Amino acid sequence: MIHRARWEGPPTGGGPKVVALGGGHGLYASLSALRRITSELTAVVTVADDGGSSGRLRREMGVLPPGDLRMALAALCGDDDWGRTWSRVVQHRFRSQGELHGHAVGNLLIVALWELLEDPVAALDWVGRLLGAHGRVLPMASVPLDIVAEVELDGRITTVRGQVACALTPGRVRAVSLVPPDPPACPEAIHAVLDADWIVFGPGSWFTSVLPHLKVPRLARALHETDARRLVTLNLAPQPGETDGFSPQQHLEVLRQHAPDLRIDVVLADTSVLDDVEELEKATAALGGRLVTADVARSDGSPRHDALRLASVLDEIFHEKR
Amino acid sequence: MIHRARWEGPPTGGGPKVVALGGGHGLYASLSALRRITSELTAVVTVADDGGSSGRLRREMGVLPPGDLRMALAALCGDDDWGRTWSRVVQHRFRSQGELHGHAVGNLLIVALWELLEDPVAALDWVGRLLGAHGRVLPMASVPLDIVAEVELDGRITTVRGQVACALTPGRVRAVSLVPPDPPACPEAIHAVLDADWIVFGPGSWFTSVLPHLKVPRLARALHETDARRLVTLNLAPQPGETDGFSPQQHLEVLRQHAPDLRIDVVLADTSVLDDVEELEKATAALGGRLVTADVARSDGSPRHDALRLASVLDEIFHEKR
Repeated sequence: MIHRARWEGPPTGGGPKVVALGGGHGLYASLSALRRITSELTAVVTVADDGGSSGRLRREMGVLPPGDLRMALAALCGDDDWGRTWSRVVQHRFRSQGELHGHAVGNLLIVALWELLEDPVAALDWVGRLLGAHGRVLPMASVPLDIVAEVELDGRITTVRGQVACALTPGRVRAVSLVPPDPPACPEAIHAVLDADWIVFGPGSWFTSVLPHLKVPRLARALHETDARRLVTLNLAPQPGETDGFSPQQHLEVLRQHAPDLRIDVVLADTSVLDDVEELEKATAALGGRLVTADVARSDGSPRHDALRLASVLDEIFHEKR
Repeated sequence: MIHRARWEGPPTGGGPKVVALGGGHGLYASLSALRRITSELTAVVTVADDGGSSGRLRREMGVLPPGDLRMALAALCGDDDWGRTWSRVVQHRFRSQGELHGHAVGNLLIVALWELLEDPVAALDWVGRLLGAHGRVLPMASVPLDIVAEVELDGRITTVRGQVACALTPGRVRAVSLVPPDPPACPEAIHAVLDADWIVFGPGSWFTSVLPHLKVPRLARALHETDARRLVTLNLAPQPGETDGFSPQQHLEVLRQHAPDLRIDVVLADTSVLDDVEELEKATAALGGRLVTADVARSDGSPRHDALRLASVLDEIFHEKR
């Protein structure tokens, strides 16, 4: 089945309850689409970043890395002058020769609210209110996490710790786990997953943004137990350092390896990634789902999802019969 | 004339157009009172700080020192949960062993808005909207300033540059000037001064927060030419390093030395500072004004103005016939 992009306007309120999982630019793309088709939207965001502004704040202040949370909030900002201005402020990054260089303003704001309110979720809700956010943003765990990756290079398996190290190490990631291995999940995230109509995995850095949610035990259990339907939005291109040379079906295979009992209802792939439709259909069927292919990439040739096209296709999928 | 503090509730809108001049904690106290008696309130704030978070930002980012502006904005924050929470965020100061230590969050927010909007006044207006501020906050000049003080110690006069240096140097400040000596004033501040019903000088660090406004040529001209009445709120105690041993009348004398042609209509002094009422009345008369004394200090004995008492007395003064 090939869907054509079609867009019939923003939601007037309501819509299915959707939980989007991921981090970074992938989750930003997912939320930019989902905000257009539902007002019942929750992002559950990875908290394992150890690079850049987030990594520095995590080390200096002992807090969750705020960057992926900030970016998700910005993706949901209000459509008016107010929302857009505060979104620009929150996304603004200082450039200097000094100590502030590279810090994103929203990261500092989130950390300040964490320190003041001593409640990570309440603090994020305040930033959401500032932005007039079309949805809620939650951390996937209540403590900062480290990703540990098994990396294969020239037939040898090594272990690499930390998101930055994972991205920089040559070789192919085979599996990821978390340190600590049993982090406390965010209760509000568990509730959102159990209460959802749809769970959306990806797009995003497969090993460091999409799969880690399945390694937080209580969150993973909720993701298995929920009555929600589960959708995977495949990436438009492999990610250098993480999934070099991975085919779309290999993305699904590692998902299955990390959560063998997780049933996926729908896999959404852009038509451009279809090198072998039969293999992809087979991998999808192995997860218990069906494949939907559609034009959801930007027309400028960049490997990024077009928010309106993705919104249109997701809207259609959400409203089909089970 | 001795006024007793009396307070009859917040303004319901309107009130005289008041411009409050100063910086730091003194201006905070003045604004905390004035916001209660008028909704037509503008703060014109010194931009010569070179210490702490403001000094670091000024050096690192080449911007106006934001700290006094931030504090004035916080003094005007909305009375509801929204205004109070964002005011706490804006006033929050990071504590760490690292590079963010000591930075006030609001300073970072103001600098980000300056960088994004490239318009110092528009940026401050955005922070004002965030806080639901009861009034407007403007810088007294459009470029960062340095204060140069003539300091007398053991009969010798030396010159000290910078607000921190002024505060730390032993000896008594005799006069201040600015570098650059002819900074561009903030046009909106000029307009507010010319349009005002009342101008309020002080309380505050006399040489580094109250007098500098008279050394910005265009602002000084507006302060002389305005049809507004002019009121000086005297400090409750001399300030170590700046006005050690200064009597209230000496405060008025240095004001006259810095602006010989400036007519002051009212000088407001707390009853506790009246060591020599006759001398103070004489110094007030030399400025062309009348002395009002009242209990406007906190009852806890700290040398700080009580916002409600000060509001009550100012309200009464503003509504007397000229």
